[in-house]
Amino acid sequence: MNYAGIGHRPESEDISLVGTDKVQLRLRTARDDVAQVAVVYGDPYAIPNKHARWFEHRVPMERRLQTDVYDYWMVTITEPKHRLAYGFYVTGFDGDEVLYVDQGIKKKPTEAELTNENMYFRLPYFHQIDAFHAPQWVNETVWYQIFPERFANGNPELNPAGTKEWDSTVHPGRQDFYGGDLQGVLDHLDHLVDLGVNGIYFNPIFKAPSNHKYDTEDYFEIDPHFGDKKLFKRLVQEAHKRGIRVMLDAVFNHIGDQSPQWQDVIKNGAGSKYADWFHIHEFPVHYTPTDNFEFTDDANYETFSYTPHMPKLNTANPEVQDYLLSIATYWIKEFDIDAWRLDVANEIDHHFWRRFHDATTALKPDFYILGEIWHTAEPWLQGDQFTGVMNYAYTDDIKRHFLTHEIDAPQMIAELNAILMHYSDQANSMMFNVLDSHDTARIKTLAHDNMDLTRQILAFTFMQPGTPSIYYGTEYGMTGENDPDDRKPMVWDPELQDQTMYGFMQRLVRVRQQVANKLTVGRMKWAVDADNVITLDYGAVRITVNTGDQAATINSQGDVLLAQNYENGQLTRDGFVIATN
Amino acid sequence: MNYAGIGHRPESEDISLVGTDKVQLRLRTARDDVAQVAVVYGDPYAIPNKHARWFEHRVPMERRLQTDVYDYWMVTITEPKHRLAYGFYVTGFDGDEVLYVDQGIKKKPTEAELTNENMYFRLPYFHQIDAFHAPQWVNETVWYQIFPERFANGNPELNPAGTKEWDSTVHPGRQDFYGGDLQGVLDHLDHLVDLGVNGIYFNPIFKAPSNHKYDTEDYFEIDPHFGDKKLFKRLVQEAHKRGIRVMLDAVFNHIGDQSPQWQDVIKNGAGSKYADWFHIHEFPVHYTPTDNFEFTDDANYETFSYTPHMPKLNTANPEVQDYLLSIATYWIKEFDIDAWRLDVANEIDHHFWRRFHDATTALKPDFYILGEIWHTAEPWLQGDQFTGVMNYAYTDDIKRHFLTHEIDAPQMIAELNAILMHYSDQANSMMFNVLDSHDTARIKTLAHDNMDLTRQILAFTFMQPGTPSIYYGTEYGMTGENDPDDRKPMVWDPELQDQTMYGFMQRLVRVRQQVANKLTVGRMKWAVDADNVITLDYGAVRITVNTGDQAATINSQGDVLLAQNYENGQLTRDGFVIATN
Repeated sequence: MNYAGIGHRPESEDISLVGTDKVQLRLRTARDDVAQVAVVYGDPYAIPNKHARWFEHRVPMERRLQTDVYDYWMVTITEPKHRLAYGFYVTGFDGDEVLYVDQGIKKKPTEAELTNENMYFRLPYFHQIDAFHAPQWVNETVWYQIFPERFANGNPELNPAGTKEWDSTVHPGRQDFYGGDLQGVLDHLDHLVDLGVNGIYFNPIFKAPSNHKYDTEDYFEIDPHFGDKKLFKRLVQEAHKRGIRVMLDAVFNHIGDQSPQWQDVIKNGAGSKYADWFHIHEFPVHYTPTDNFEFTDDANYETFSYTPHMPKLNTANPEVQDYLLSIATYWIKEFDIDAWRLDVANEIDHHFWRRFHDATTALKPDFYILGEIWHTAEPWLQGDQFTGVMNYAYTDDIKRHFLTHEIDAPQMIAELNAILMHYSDQANSMMFNVLDSHDTARIKTLAHDNMDLTRQILAFTFMQPGTPSIYYGTEYGMTGENDPDDRKPMVWDPELQDQTMYGFMQRLVRVRQQVANKLTVGRMKWAVDADNVITLDYGAVRITVNTGDQAATINSQGDVLLAQNYENGQLTRDGFVIATN
Repeated sequence: MNYAGIGHRPESEDISLVGTDKVQLRLRTARDDVAQVAVVYGDPYAIPNKHARWFEHRVPMERRLQTDVYDYWMVTITEPKHRLAYGFYVTGFDGDEVLYVDQGIKKKPTEAELTNENMYFRLPYFHQIDAFHAPQWVNETVWYQIFPERFANGNPELNPAGTKEWDSTVHPGRQDFYGGDLQGVLDHLDHLVDLGVNGIYFNPIFKAPSNHKYDTEDYFEIDPHFGDKKLFKRLVQEAHKRGIRVMLDAVFNHIGDQSPQWQDVIKNGAGSKYADWFHIHEFPVHYTPTDNFEFTDDANYETFSYTPHMPKLNTANPEVQDYLLSIATYWIKEFDIDAWRLDVANEIDHHFWRRFHDATTALKPDFYILGEIWHTAEPWLQGDQFTGVMNYAYTDDIKRHFLTHEIDAPQMIAELNAILMHYSDQANSMMFNVLDSHDTARIKTLAHDNMDLTRQILAFTFMQPGTPSIYYGTEYGMTGENDPDDRKPMVWDPELQDQTMYGFMQRLVRVRQQVANKLTVGRMKWAVDADNVITLDYGAVRITVNTGDQAATINSQGDVLLAQNYENGQLTRDGFVIATN
């Protein structure tokens, strides 16, 4: 047996409280190396009191997801005393058996070892306050991402100087304005209802010079080109009336250089009362501009990336913490928002995010905290900081199979499973699964305008654990290369809208909401055949996709909820079937 | 190559900030499987800006500690931009080479992959506020543990009713009192100075009915049989004058059933204002007493172990948190204590410990927070909670080789290394290495009164990374079986004191303090021969022990700092040599 492959980390994604006295356990072993695993567990204090020889009662674990390198085993157990010692009996295909515990691998544990409660792994007490909280509503939400400057111009009086004419076919420049605003969103709320989505993720709406507003000037003001607080309040209320939640974008890693805080530093240098709000190496602050507005290589203060206009905030300064938390709570208390999306969340300290978590969830226990993190994100998803992260890593693996064929189906499944196993099942159900956004090319463009393929990859992504998001305009077949081309004005001209796509998206959203609660990692079973027919089966519901060139006959049991390129049991290229079992 | 053995966890003990722009990295591979490892690293934002192809610059890692299952590789690197992407090139003895990154194992990474900053592991930003802080003074301290009821009776007027006569040869009963008090400690401070120790760890001194005081009645009062606050204040001042730090014992997992809070619950049931301070399943609270004062199996409230007199506090209740934090800060602010030892620390929630960390270190940045945890303790030692834990797991492995011979020397070394690799090197330097305490039999008794062996195991333990502790009386050769026999009254009669042992302990303490800063995990190198001669070499200093039966010739270079059973280069049974290189 490959001992080096056996792994379990206490108080991590490998063990989750899933009820008052229920715990979900996970163990990994080297791929195809282990025949069976059983867990032994009980109250550690029962052993010395001779209440129980629980270490003799083996409960089998089930082999579930597999990666390139590992098999993962899972089980859910109950311990009414709310304190747990546990160990794993691992039996290799070679017949070797070991007990794997906190003290390592025991080949032949003695009675003295078996009755030593400190040998075992431990969850010392079941603390709900430390547990990961997965709000039910998040899992049942299909998000719709709005880049406010480009969604709809509802009030031309607010147009910035030089606003260009609304045209969904243009290729916007980096500094262009088109006059999108909050009134435009309000005017089209019923479009969202018709589409069926029930959450809006807004890119930043606070006062800022740029069209993207990631260079915040004032976190307490709605950008005047977008509207005002009264209008935003009404927008949230109208959204809520329609069952639509509202998520705003918090840009706390850095502030815009037009903010009064940074301007004060420029003016007063080391004497500025904001001097300690930043990471400044020397005064006065300076940088050498380059041809690229967003690049300098000699700023003498820390910035987001190499962007001189985004000085990094010093979130270790309690004044900065209090300031940012006052913003975070203000928009919840006064405007009743339901979620914050956190920009560049990985570059802000954990200490701050813990305070953020406590402050926001104290106001709304079911608040959704979504971090922008492009790499794996265990450190933020242990229950004390975020509820989910933008799951680019996951959707990238999907794209690398469906769109670019860089990896084959088994490899994609192995990589998706590897990402899932970085997180607890609860965290996985909260991940924000975006195929495209303001930071990527649009999915239709990546699919080279192949609409069957676009719909297939959307259907596959919607059937993953997590919470899916539609980037504005996808429902009408909008296209766009990378930023800024992915930020075209929304297509409102019916002549230019892809109505077939719209009808499909309506159905896909409805199906997703119908099955949302079935899409859990604990139920996932993959199957793949040589012709690239992939089935992801959750028991109650499954999706089958054909990512190959050959028609394939597939199991047709159950009711078909949504399908494409599927006829008489034959699933052809770019086809999929979502069906019950 | 054994891919399943390759492992690195971002933002864990595998990566530590060790300076403003310095990071220590650790990688594990399957034992004896990998020939070399090199790290590539740089600023993630430099790649798209084409500032650097840092992923082409390989920096070799060094293979260091080895366990039964793994080899561990280490390196320290510098990144002035304070943000880090990194990956590991791993080359097997079989010639296979892979790049191991956040996205897993890449066999032949493409240019597109190599230039994708999101493929790599990431330390997004170097946040000192999240970093582990290891106060220098802790590493330089040799602790002396005092069980106050049994150390010295300085004021007989405070004796509890029924106090027994001071006699270091008795076997104390579980409920006995001998009249030890704080005046007794004050009277013997110069004994501690003479011994050379520079920290006192006090078992609980707050008002409580028992002799051990773990059943706290009032956290804001010194037990009246021990003295009063004025005396305690003087004791801390006098200790500090002598360069001795003071650590108190905080029993926050549970409270004594004689406390006003629990008495109020007994009296007022669900109507008590303290009803939510506990975990009570139904009112009124009750339990069935048994022959064992400390055991019941039917309490309808949660307790420490099965002890009805220790109801568990509900630390998720903000009122309880605030109460306990007011205690934690009171004794720092008013009495200037330097450290808290936290009883049953593993059974209190992390959320509380984070508040505790912030509240105590805000008052004293170099405050030492020591948790009582008998199993491995990664979740508490990531920088946000504890500074160290009582390292019973580590000293148990030492005992299982030196005393009981359950494991041979290579196995002991493998197990010690495995424990070290659970923690960052900084955390390892803060671990509280106790061979014995009020909760274990005394080391001399465990060594069957073999004084050479007792001294050898003490010398070996003092030469480990971490901070060592002497249980009161060890310096005079005191004996004792498990609790309560390990709590005999201190031997003050010179006739009964082992003066040879005392002289040895003085020298051992002095040597330890002289070399304390050299004893780091990063410098550790083990060697062991077939005759059980073990050398632990830190470069500047080393210890060699002979745990076998045969005399052995050992390398005699350098100055001998302390030795036993060592003559003419021959190290015999139970011998050791501490020497410079």
